[in-house]
Amino acid sequence: MDETTHSVGLAQPQRAHFDTPVTLAGGATLPAYDLVYETYGELNAARTNAVLVCHALSGNHHLAGRYADNPQSVGWWDNLIGPGKPLDTRKFFVVGMNNLGGCYGSTGPMTTNPASGQPWGADFPVVTVEDCVATQARLADVLGIDDWAAVMGGSLGGMQALQWTLDYPERIRHALVIAAAPKLTAQNIAFNEVARQAILTDPDFHGGHYYAHGVVPVRGLRLARMLGHITYLSDDQMAEKFGRKLRREALQYNYEVDFEIESYLRYQGDKFAGYFDANTYLIATKALDYFDPAGAFGGDLRAALARARAKFLVVSFSTDWRFAPERSREIVFGLVHNSLGVSYAEIESSAGHDSFLLDDAHYHAVLRAYFEGVAV
Amino acid sequence: MDETTHSVGLAQPQRAHFDTPVTLAGGATLPAYDLVYETYGELNAARTNAVLVCHALSGNHHLAGRYADNPQSVGWWDNLIGPGKPLDTRKFFVVGMNNLGGCYGSTGPMTTNPASGQPWGADFPVVTVEDCVATQARLADVLGIDDWAAVMGGSLGGMQALQWTLDYPERIRHALVIAAAPKLTAQNIAFNEVARQAILTDPDFHGGHYYAHGVVPVRGLRLARMLGHITYLSDDQMAEKFGRKLRREALQYNYEVDFEIESYLRYQGDKFAGYFDANTYLIATKALDYFDPAGAFGGDLRAALARARAKFLVVSFSTDWRFAPERSREIVFGLVHNSLGVSYAEIESSAGHDSFLLDDAHYHAVLRAYFEGVAV
Repeated sequence: MDETTHSVGLAQPQRAHFDTPVTLAGGATLPAYDLVYETYGELNAARTNAVLVCHALSGNHHLAGRYADNPQSVGWWDNLIGPGKPLDTRKFFVVGMNNLGGCYGSTGPMTTNPASGQPWGADFPVVTVEDCVATQARLADVLGIDDWAAVMGGSLGGMQALQWTLDYPERIRHALVIAAAPKLTAQNIAFNEVARQAILTDPDFHGGHYYAHGVVPVRGLRLARMLGHITYLSDDQMAEKFGRKLRREALQYNYEVDFEIESYLRYQGDKFAGYFDANTYLIATKALDYFDPAGAFGGDLRAALARARAKFLVVSFSTDWRFAPERSREIVFGLVHNSLGVSYAEIESSAGHDSFLLDDAHYHAVLRAYFEGVAV
Repeated sequence: MDETTHSVGLAQPQRAHFDTPVTLAGGATLPAYDLVYETYGELNAARTNAVLVCHALSGNHHLAGRYADNPQSVGWWDNLIGPGKPLDTRKFFVVGMNNLGGCYGSTGPMTTNPASGQPWGADFPVVTVEDCVATQARLADVLGIDDWAAVMGGSLGGMQALQWTLDYPERIRHALVIAAAPKLTAQNIAFNEVARQAILTDPDFHGGHYYAHGVVPVRGLRLARMLGHITYLSDDQMAEKFGRKLRREALQYNYEVDFEIESYLRYQGDKFAGYFDANTYLIATKALDYFDPAGAFGGDLRAALARARAKFLVVSFSTDWRFAPERSREIVFGLVHNSLGVSYAEIESSAGHDSFLLDDAHYHAVLRAYFEGVAV
């Protein structure tokens, strides 16, 4: 198969406007909102082949292909989605949606708050995983999708896939929950809190209304991303990729770059701060922190999962210390306890949490085999 | 034994002034400098019972006892040092010294730079572990200590104890290297770099000359400490101590405190930023990053340790993920390879890297037994 048969080709974002108010988990009501999405492949006549792919902290709706005006704009999960790829768009109709609260076109902090006539900024309500799922369900309604063949996602996206099986058990046949956890640990929350404090205390944050000041809290967002990157990579991979390699020939004895890892982190931080919205970052970390389906069941995950009806593929990665394999196994045990169909793959990978985005052969073979077994 | 027999009582900082220039590893020369120190117990007539205790990132010379004017001013290793304690001041003469570059009285960034007439600020040279050891040796000269019965320290302090055995093998009989590593990994450096960038990019940092501006880079130092705290504690301990416990009854759905762990980190960050100097923090993280005795031996730690003559106690803690037990074992293997006398204790503790400061019974029993075997 040549290169072109593997790409979905040119992608085209679409926009759905919703005039029916939505009340979010925190109590706030949005009278109206927009959701931006992309689709790949064709919805079959029976409308049984739709797959929703949920994005993580910094992702968006642009899963695959590229935009006509920018050859560099390849979708973030392009290695997975396309004709002949593990999530084969010849069989499936794939949907990517920018979550509510996002910064890629869906209604979020940069949108005008009708109450003030100004951008929402940090006043935009926290959007929980449940809220993401509820609005994704509204998009499904618009697209005429009664039930998803599958909902999949990694990290925060995996939490959404899991939440779908609880909130709409009759509307999802398969859930692919990848590199996720049933809830964050204190350590996870702690890392998110440092990232948030970096943003919130940046003098350019202006209480979240930095748009009006013509600035962006670059310093805070940069620190948040640098810290995030440490937790996305594994200790082993960092050692292998960077070790103690110096950027120049000798130590500098100042606060410029000494080690390659410093240069890498600064680069990643600078790049991210140049395109991502700080208020959306805050919202997404809160969505992570708040996710805890067992919370309403006194911490009993098995009880929380009892209402699920889907079949599951759960995937974890050996060196992922942000959401370690044992966290995925908690989900698996809870599902098995409820006699739900669950496949579990613990992939050997040196790449830490980021592994879920890579095209590791074993990992992709598992996804391919699973999707081949999904009836449409 | 009652309480008073266990305390060294009132502590009295002392100051030594040095007029002989010192050239640091980075090439800078200080024409003169001061070192602040405290001593506990009595130097015996043969001058054979002196123990140097080296401090870590945020420590100082005030190891034990308290100051007359402040009952709260208990030394940071008071649980270890005193009459009848594991490091028994009835037997040993114990010395604590604020490292060069520190912020507790020794010459450092807050000291006037003779070249400018202004405080050094971030222009104060980076002080490496080797530099710490070299200046500690000068203090030993002043105190009339030809050789230390022991040099001990945890974390960055443990690195100094190890360096002593390499730079002054004839001046140290025992080294106690606790919760340390032979060099930092890329991940360790990465955490330090995020902390440094938090400080360096704080608008109140003013290139390190914030003293002249009457401000302190509180935001950056606070973030650095919050992040540091995550790495000092273990995941397990955080889970046990904080878990997902909420500060109030319900989630707030804003960016105030939701979880206890957030409150704890903010408190620790605020407190630290109120008393520690940001320039010293930068220096200390560089000292950590640069430490690599094997570096000059092509990475061969065994070759680097060949010149040591001391006996060793190496201690690590099971849940310390900042300097994990395997890092201590690297040191042990290198010492054993050189047929040096080495005892190794891997202490079961839930408290992560911070364990070295706690009075865990097993840990203190190991230290006590080791010190009992140190001839004076």
